[in-house]
Amino acid sequence: MTIAPVACLDQVPALVEPRIRDLLGRLDPRNQRVGAYQLGYCDADGAPTAAGGKGIRPALALLSARAAGHPPERGTAAAAAVELAHNFSLLHDDVMDQDTMRRHRPTAWAVFGTAAAILAGDALMILAHDALAGDSRPGGAQAARRLDADVHRLIAGQAADLEFERRDDVSLDECLAMAADKTAALMSCACTLGALLCGAPAALTQGLSRFGVHLGMSFQLVDDQLGIWGEPGRTGKPVGSDLRARKKSVPIVHALTSGTAAGDALRSLYASTHELQEADLMTASRLLEESGSRDWVQDQADRHLAGALDELAALDLPADVHDDLVGLARLVTGRDH
Amino acid sequence: MTIAPVACLDQVPALVEPRIRDLLGRLDPRNQRVGAYQLGYCDADGAPTAAGGKGIRPALALLSARAAGHPPERGTAAAAAVELAHNFSLLHDDVMDQDTMRRHRPTAWAVFGTAAAILAGDALMILAHDALAGDSRPGGAQAARRLDADVHRLIAGQAADLEFERRDDVSLDECLAMAADKTAALMSCACTLGALLCGAPAALTQGLSRFGVHLGMSFQLVDDQLGIWGEPGRTGKPVGSDLRARKKSVPIVHALTSGTAAGDALRSLYASTHELQEADLMTASRLLEESGSRDWVQDQADRHLAGALDELAALDLPADVHDDLVGLARLVTGRDH
Repeated sequence: MTIAPVACLDQVPALVEPRIRDLLGRLDPRNQRVGAYQLGYCDADGAPTAAGGKGIRPALALLSARAAGHPPERGTAAAAAVELAHNFSLLHDDVMDQDTMRRHRPTAWAVFGTAAAILAGDALMILAHDALAGDSRPGGAQAARRLDADVHRLIAGQAADLEFERRDDVSLDECLAMAADKTAALMSCACTLGALLCGAPAALTQGLSRFGVHLGMSFQLVDDQLGIWGEPGRTGKPVGSDLRARKKSVPIVHALTSGTAAGDALRSLYASTHELQEADLMTASRLLEESGSRDWVQDQADRHLAGALDELAALDLPADVHDDLVGLARLVTGRDH
Repeated sequence: MTIAPVACLDQVPALVEPRIRDLLGRLDPRNQRVGAYQLGYCDADGAPTAAGGKGIRPALALLSARAAGHPPERGTAAAAAVELAHNFSLLHDDVMDQDTMRRHRPTAWAVFGTAAAILAGDALMILAHDALAGDSRPGGAQAARRLDADVHRLIAGQAADLEFERRDDVSLDECLAMAADKTAALMSCACTLGALLCGAPAALTQGLSRFGVHLGMSFQLVDDQLGIWGEPGRTGKPVGSDLRARKKSVPIVHALTSGTAAGDALRSLYASTHELQEADLMTASRLLEESGSRDWVQDQADRHLAGALDELAALDLPADVHDDLVGLARLVTGRDH
């Protein structure tokens, strides 16, 4: 199969960025600047850059409109809304997690301060509504409700994630539910919102939504692995950052609840009160492999990717749209090479 | 004139609280709990309380529907949306300002942590949208756009307020514009949103909106005075808290830009790098009186109240609605006794 994800990702700077820049222009200068930095449109001094995210979510939203038989332009409002909502959550998550690096740059709060990052996040979330409110098609109200419902799940997932750091009895089911809320909900929203806005039939929007849930789970599981085993060149974050923060991501909770000797050893390490050093991180990483968690998580990520592709195959999509969605799905889950 | 603000405030627990509690029930348990605490529905342990705000904004929103000739019930969605948006902003403002007390209780972040307060704020803002989205009347879309526009102004005002703390060249005009954004915009929204939802004519919604701007400015100027001269029994905050934080509220900027000896002395005190002690706060308070700022601000507050009442008088309102709005306006601006 020929995979050409680049082509549909290229539509994001062409179609979605101008819309988002236009929306950003409605903000006061202070929030505009922090928002533009977060979105990768400028550096800390306001000079133009091209350091933003890959644009996976907006690309999916444009494809969602194409899946409904419309040109990608008809998904622009959905793509802008999803990208703004995603960056709202990144701004606030980085404050809450005290993460100092994202996408190979200092995080917004590290540059502009905590208060500025909180406010800019608030502003981007309202702008996401503005993006949809500016689209007068009948599907607009349904799209707005869907976005809000998924943002509620994103917030609930982040709340659970933070609570897990303070608990030592997190079950694997709880942890998977947290990942579904925190990551898969907005990914599924991206896959559905363009079609909703175009008034697509329920069978299509529901199929795209299920595709997005599988894709989001697979992406999160791969991301959890990257949070433990690198690679920083890909993630822009330090290796072992999740372990250092004693995060309860899926691989870690799988190990802790595995009933293996390696899982018990990891539990002891996590229960210690000292700051985890490089040697501890290497030990933890080894214990995760010994407990079988690394293999299990990769297997689950592959199953979700397969589930996503099955959902796509069951929809009667134009061949080019199908292939672009497959290409993006493989890219997002690190299965593009 | 007989003033009976209590009667229309009593409709808030009867009509608005059940709607907000219903909306809160959609949240995950973690955000639900912080949200209910913030709204004054429960204490830190989740036990029911009645420690919430006075319900000024939701009462204004119910009156806004009555001003349009509808029963107050028709303004319930607007009232819930405004109260939720207001509490979203309080949750985040208290984090940003590091304020530890509000309404005679520890602030939400002081009880539940910064991350929990940020997330609950996010959740309440989305719930404000849900409140309006649940009302299918034709005015709903316009009301949602108005709410978002005023929340943008609120966020811009808070960003300006925080920036002013780091600047020593804030002009009085800038400071008044900040107060208009930070406070008057949402107060004006409360006065307008119920009528918008009921599809009221533009002459009425615009008049109510101007009433709300004057009311919001008068309220903020009175609040600025309370932030300097007390009374803690009324505010639930320590006396002198704005001075201690070297805030650039309107009375302070008026003094700093007054060209008086007292204003210059205040500037020197603010420019010092040491933490301001009780004696400094008393000096600052005295300098504000000597510079004429206390009198000027009270005069401005009175003028805005008069402007608000003039706007009301120009509208052809039912007598009972007019009197309730006057009663609330006097209550909000401390002119009710």
